[in-house]
Amino acid sequence: MPLPIEFAERGDKNTIENECGFAPKFGDDGLIPVVTQDNKSGEVLMVAYMNREALQQTITIREAVYYSRSRNQLWHKGETSGNVQKVTEMRTDCDQDVILLKVEQVGPGCCHVGYASCFYRKAPLGDQLAATAENGIAQLELSEEKTYNPDEVY
Amino acid sequence: MPLPIEFAERGDKNTIENECGFAPKFGDDGLIPVVTQDNKSGEVLMVAYMNREALQQTITIREAVYYSRSRNQLWHKGETSGNVQKVTEMRTDCDQDVILLKVEQVGPGCCHVGYASCFYRKAPLGDQLAATAENGIAQLELSEEKTYNPDEVY
Repeated sequence: MPLPIEFAERGDKNTIENECGFAPKFGDDGLIPVVTQDNKSGEVLMVAYMNREALQQTITIREAVYYSRSRNQLWHKGETSGNVQKVTEMRTDCDQDVILLKVEQVGPGCCHVGYASCFYRKAPLGDQLAATAENGIAQLELSEEKTYNPDEVY
Repeated sequence: MPLPIEFAERGDKNTIENECGFAPKFGDDGLIPVVTQDNKSGEVLMVAYMNREALQQTITIREAVYYSRSRNQLWHKGETSGNVQKVTEMRTDCDQDVILLKVEQVGPGCCHVGYASCFYRKAPLGDQLAATAENGIAQLELSEEKTYNPDEVY
């Protein structure tokens, strides 16, 4: 049964930044971006999106429920595999248009490519840009090892 | 003088995820979301956006240059105050539609409200939602102290 609790209405800038009514801003597409961070290492695991219902479900069940933009449906991450994200803390930012989750990631990782985090490649900075380019195209550097074989899971 | 290095063109899903051409996805508005994290503590400081030029400048000068959606212009953070964000690492995610920056934040904090991080308020989870609500409205909990007085800076 859903709790009879509503989000606050979006007030003026000062209210949103300095008062404590929880007034998440859902964009024109109904979505708010979500940064998900490992609660122990602080590693950023992924960035995804929630609609209002996904956010309400996440708060209620304390596991990450996103909204899949590719499948256009709610996405309770890990529901099938058991590799859920147990939410230990939720925050929002000054203008309440981003959600930050700290989670305990169950299983070998969050990324469908096979890595613990989706951010498994570094981008070039400064002189590295030209030094590592191939045929004039900027190159990423793979900086993590896979923690599982996605072919065995997906 | 700009370096003669281009980003890669967006290829198919496998190329974007598993090869190393840097092919950032700028949305219909020309922007890519950026998560900025303290390089020592791992604390997420803010989420902002870059257009192509902001990303190129950030790579070149190794300080965070965003695109201000409210002012519709490039935003070299801390350029006036000196409280710049020195970029120590840049990453992108599996589908290359998010940038992650690890930075050394110069000065007392990144948030214009006066906090070290923009994520200075916790949101309720589970039973906390009903227990802390006021008049049926979800409430945030202020969980950080200000590190500076924004009236003296802005």
